[in-house]
Amino acid sequence: MSPDSTVFGSDIDRAFTMLFNLTDGKSSTRGSTKRHLADVKHMFVDEADALRILEKDNPLVYEFYELGIPSHPGDLAFGTSITYPGQVAGEYYMTKGHFHQILETAEVYYSIQGHGMMMMENPEGQWDCQELTPGKAVYVPKRFAHRSINIGQNPFVTFFCFRADAGHDYKTIETKGFRKIVVEKDGKPDIIDNPRWK
Amino acid sequence: MSPDSTVFGSDIDRAFTMLFNLTDGKSSTRGSTKRHLADVKHMFVDEADALRILEKDNPLVYEFYELGIPSHPGDLAFGTSITYPGQVAGEYYMTKGHFHQILETAEVYYSIQGHGMMMMENPEGQWDCQELTPGKAVYVPKRFAHRSINIGQNPFVTFFCFRADAGHDYKTIETKGFRKIVVEKDGKPDIIDNPRWK
Repeated sequence: MSPDSTVFGSDIDRAFTMLFNLTDGKSSTRGSTKRHLADVKHMFVDEADALRILEKDNPLVYEFYELGIPSHPGDLAFGTSITYPGQVAGEYYMTKGHFHQILETAEVYYSIQGHGMMMMENPEGQWDCQELTPGKAVYVPKRFAHRSINIGQNPFVTFFCFRADAGHDYKTIETKGFRKIVVEKDGKPDIIDNPRWK
Repeated sequence: MSPDSTVFGSDIDRAFTMLFNLTDGKSSTRGSTKRHLADVKHMFVDEADALRILEKDNPLVYEFYELGIPSHPGDLAFGTSITYPGQVAGEYYMTKGHFHQILETAEVYYSIQGHGMMMMENPEGQWDCQELTPGKAVYVPKRFAHRSINIGQNPFVTFFCFRADAGHDYKTIETKGFRKIVVEKDGKPDIIDNPRWK
């Protein structure tokens, strides 16, 4: 039986396992990619509030695992995504969000901990937002950009899977934003128009 | 937000969620495909022992969810697989196992309950067997037939994902079997040559 941790060449020709803890989503054998508030301050509508927080602290907003699966249409990229609880001026902590470079590829997320939402929109202007609790799988259809949002008090953890050659287009969302944002209103999540959407 | 249960047309153009309980793997909104011992008695080496069991009872060996995701290379099929604890003459309960019809497609299984193994082999004669406990993901590489085996006392539950157009070839395994089988020996799983392998 092979070890948990594997470095891949140009092709995967052997089975392997990876442990992602069902409680916190973490791997003990791989490092995650981490996004602190300083890295993602621009994505919040009230960037000034993000800067106020950053005067004292640079909290971890989210982290996820990139295993380096070769970019082959018959392979699958997978791992966990962990979005932490928190807000910037009422807007919940969330991931940057991205389109796939190969737009015609879907993604599946299986929720294992916490309370979150998956915000989605396609270039044609359709959008959707699905609430997620442990055990819920969400299907992100082809063409839909997607972002995880933590609307709870604990880390929001999902196991994700997508075609390994799909690729990530982060830039479109960084430039335009999502049409809708999720903010806390009267103690509950409220989906509103993004005033900065272009 | 859309309901848990969705019937798909020829293309998936809307997001949806599906609940698969993290404790037992079951969906409350979809029926599963069930394989009882009478359906799969031929896959055990000691079929006579299977027939002896069947004189009294026809236990459920495994079940899994087929959502009917359209067969498109940009879509993903997903669901849970539940293999029950049990043995036929020392050979652990397992799934039939299959190749993908598009051989060059991988599959990912994320273990959420129980204690199992993933048995794999490719047409070139390479084989591998990975032990799975909750939180472990196993990567089934392109070209590898795969079968879930329950080596524990409780249901072995995984969440799986593969390219929606991959297709299933059950017949090759039904005819040839896997090169290796897993039997209990001195209270522990033992991987041995399959005496009926062709």
